Amino acid sequence: MSKKAKTAIIPTRSEDFSEWYQQVIKAADMAENSPVRGCMIIKPYGYAVWENIQRIFDKRIKEGGVQNAYFPLLIPLEFISREAEHVDGFAKECAVVTHHRLEKDVNGKLQLAESAKLEEPYVIRPTSETIIGDAMARWIQSYRDLPMKLNQWCNVMRWEMRPRMFLRSSEFLWQEGHNAFETKDEAKEDAYKMLDAYADFAENSLAIPVIKGEKTDDERFPGADITLTIEAMMLDGKALQAGTSHYLGQNFSKSCGIKFQSREGGEDFAHTTSWGISTRLIGAMIMTHGDDDGMIMPPRVAPYHVGIIPIIRDYADSDKILNYARDLMDKLKAQGLCVKLDESDVRTGNKMWGMIKQGVPIRVEIGAREVENGTLTHVRRDLGRDSKTSCSVDVFVNSVNDILDLIHNELFTRALKLRDKNIKNIADLSELEAFFKDGNIGFARMDVKLIEDDDYKRICKDYSLTSRCKPFCDNGEKVLVGKAY
Amino acid sequence: MSKKAKTAIIPTRSEDFSEWYQQVIKAADMAENSPVRGCMIIKPYGYAVWENIQRIFDKRIKEGGVQNAYFPLLIPLEFISREAEHVDGFAKECAVVTHHRLEKDVNGKLQLAESAKLEEPYVIRPTSETIIGDAMARWIQSYRDLPMKLNQWCNVMRWEMRPRMFLRSSEFLWQEGHNAFETKDEAKEDAYKMLDAYADFAENSLAIPVIKGEKTDDERFPGADITLTIEAMMLDGKALQAGTSHYLGQNFSKSCGIKFQSREGGEDFAHTTSWGISTRLIGAMIMTHGDDDGMIMPPRVAPYHVGIIPIIRDYADSDKILNYARDLMDKLKAQGLCVKLDESDVRTGNKMWGMIKQGVPIRVEIGAREVENGTLTHVRRDLGRDSKTSCSVDVFVNSVNDILDLIHNELFTRALKLRDKNIKNIADLSELEAFFKDGNIGFARMDVKLIEDDDYKRICKDYSLTSRCKPFCDNGEKVLVGKAY
Repeated sequence: MSKKAKTAIIPTRSEDFSEWYQQVIKAADMAENSPVRGCMIIKPYGYAVWENIQRIFDKRIKEGGVQNAYFPLLIPLEFISREAEHVDGFAKECAVVTHHRLEKDVNGKLQLAESAKLEEPYVIRPTSETIIGDAMARWIQSYRDLPMKLNQWCNVMRWEMRPRMFLRSSEFLWQEGHNAFETKDEAKEDAYKMLDAYADFAENSLAIPVIKGEKTDDERFPGADITLTIEAMMLDGKALQAGTSHYLGQNFSKSCGIKFQSREGGEDFAHTTSWGISTRLIGAMIMTHGDDDGMIMPPRVAPYHVGIIPIIRDYADSDKILNYARDLMDKLKAQGLCVKLDESDVRTGNKMWGMIKQGVPIRVEIGAREVENGTLTHVRRDLGRDSKTSCSVDVFVNSVNDILDLIHNELFTRALKLRDKNIKNIADLSELEAFFKDGNIGFARMDVKLIEDDDYKRICKDYSLTSRCKPFCDNGEKVLVGKAY
Repeated sequence: MSKKAKTAIIPTRSEDFSEWYQQVIKAADMAENSPVRGCMIIKPYGYAVWENIQRIFDKRIKEGGVQNAYFPLLIPLEFISREAEHVDGFAKECAVVTHHRLEKDVNGKLQLAESAKLEEPYVIRPTSETIIGDAMARWIQSYRDLPMKLNQWCNVMRWEMRPRMFLRSSEFLWQEGHNAFETKDEAKEDAYKMLDAYADFAENSLAIPVIKGEKTDDERFPGADITLTIEAMMLDGKALQAGTSHYLGQNFSKSCGIKFQSREGGEDFAHTTSWGISTRLIGAMIMTHGDDDGMIMPPRVAPYHVGIIPIIRDYADSDKILNYARDLMDKLKAQGLCVKLDESDVRTGNKMWGMIKQGVPIRVEIGAREVENGTLTHVRRDLGRDSKTSCSVDVFVNSVNDILDLIHNELFTRALKLRDKNIKNIADLSELEAFFKDGNIGFARMDVKLIEDDDYKRICKDYSLTSRCKPFCDNGEKVLVGKAY
């Protein structure tokens, strides 16, 4: 075995984290870059994770009274313009639609038809506050129509100059929730409630520990009064904003005209919130749980919980082993688990490596000996290649859900330990600078007042740092500072 | 009561079918036109139907080995161009993206940044054969990679000059399946199999009877060797193409380069299929099942199976009635049913009309008398306003699924009878012309050879007719002709 073959992913995390990330995605067959600048193709194995994210979170928000709907992909430029008047720091990198027809030129080649130029261009939605706000203004007449809680699962576009799969792509998939309320208190409470939902989802479904907090003024969503965030620490010590929830005050309701007749009979503007998570979470999962052999799927969103590999040394045993494996698969499926039995004709070693690189939480191996003994051999992906355990089929079937919970807890605890080890308390700005100058990874935790100092801006610029959030657990008195994705 | 108030929808179907359709959508609160030309907003009640369609059909295709994935929204113009070289009759009404940035002009008004013009424009996908074919060309190396069955649920755009909600909008939602096979036989078989899946879904989930058949040459999807369709007849006698499945031969695999090493060791082009259904199906549901009081939801995709209305005449009974109603709701939900209990403070009459217009399959009324007797009153939406039945709560809970099946069957049978009554056997072209000249509604069924006559084209043009399909049940010897949506 050559030295390089010791890990499935080359380079390793410590050699080149950024390239490791790309290679994990490739080895797990989750996504790839497309011929469209900055846009990715989400391949079936990656998309299955997104479907699980959607399924779990969609159920949760519906239980909270949110209704799904669908709003147009295109936003009239005028809507964006109106928003831009109200909002500084509005992002302008958008895909703009200017024509509505193609035609053949004199050589029979297709080109855009100049004659079909739109009077007013449209922008492909970078987010839908303006067009949903416009609809809410029509739909909300009285306090009886409130609260109104709407969500859509959709694609959005922001033209990205330095795209990275899942983390930052020109097109991505997300959910955007838009809620409107009678009062400031209700709306603020809702923004916090949705942040709790995100934190709970990240920790209990994705096994990603997150820090809940409020964004500082300069990091707030343009147009929001309060931006709440969950921040996660990746394996390389960088921060990743994993979900945001905004209290928008009456800013959007005023620019969109979301007025209602109040209980007292007067007219008032609604208080609105918006909240979103995206396919970026899949990037966060990779950079939280992956190792030098590839992906490790957190069990609760894994496309397959269990992968079964038949090990056939003697062709005569083939039927016996496959039937035994299929029987096991049926038993596991009957428990609601997703199972992949690899019956393909590729080499057994390749099948094993395939499952390792895809991060299937539990790998089961079944050979002639297992069939004879009524047993199976199983391997937890999170514990490394040599953690093999043998037991009877019944014992496995009865304990598989517990094992999956153990894997979830192990992944979560591991990530939590790494994160907490890499949060450094900082007393002043010179210590902040020294920390990042020395090449340390992680977050600096310091008094929030320090960010008002001009030197803070200079240090942030020099070391590519940003204020990540003012954690709730510090009562807003501290701020976490770090490099970020 | 004024004469007009006798139906909930004004105008009625017979007065103005087209306007009736718009009013049903409005009264049921399913969708509305948006400020974006030709694009609709799908409101929660309409979107819930689409979610049910997705859930049921997605399960089915996954059982058939199809994997979901996600491909970019934007298609490079070059891809479309390449396709256009192969394909005549390519639709050219597309939304074209030409710029990637906005900027403020001297007056602070937002406009597109001329400096951010794309070298090559992109087209918003009207369908994804080209970009998925391009990916398949990379992913398929050998016969071992086949069959490859991919699907995506997504939005697509085709610039529509005469948009109608659900039926023809510039943006719509759909699923597009793209399968690749080793052999012609397998691919053709798959195209037929997917058509069967659509027909089964239309009939058994949406209660829409459909005719399976093949499109004639002039109606075939550009680029397909065979286009299969399910055609439904709407209440006004017009046809609606409710789903299509194409055998694309090697046309796309040749233009996209989907080559593979064959079992014999040579190189071959894959045989591909594509197949789609869209939000148009919701339009078909409305125009198949609706009546002059509004929508009638086919139970298996209805957002609510049962709507409960508490009838509180005496405020003192309020708690008693509401608790009784909530208890019923819990019992029904425990059976997996979706239930709406309307506790809002609007007038009882308005609640009833709301449920009628939304087409909730079963309406349950609970007043003080029902609570006293341990009974309830239920009304089937499909049988009209006076079909009230009283029974005990237990009897209702035990029979509610059967009642929903009865409603499904009634809707299906009703539509089937109307359709079959309105298919007229036609002997020659003069009879065809006479049939539509006389203002008859429905389909003409005639010998397929008649469409080769030049006079057929003239008649089609004069009466806005098209060949709908050559029904399988006629062995391809007949063709159905009619007006269509």
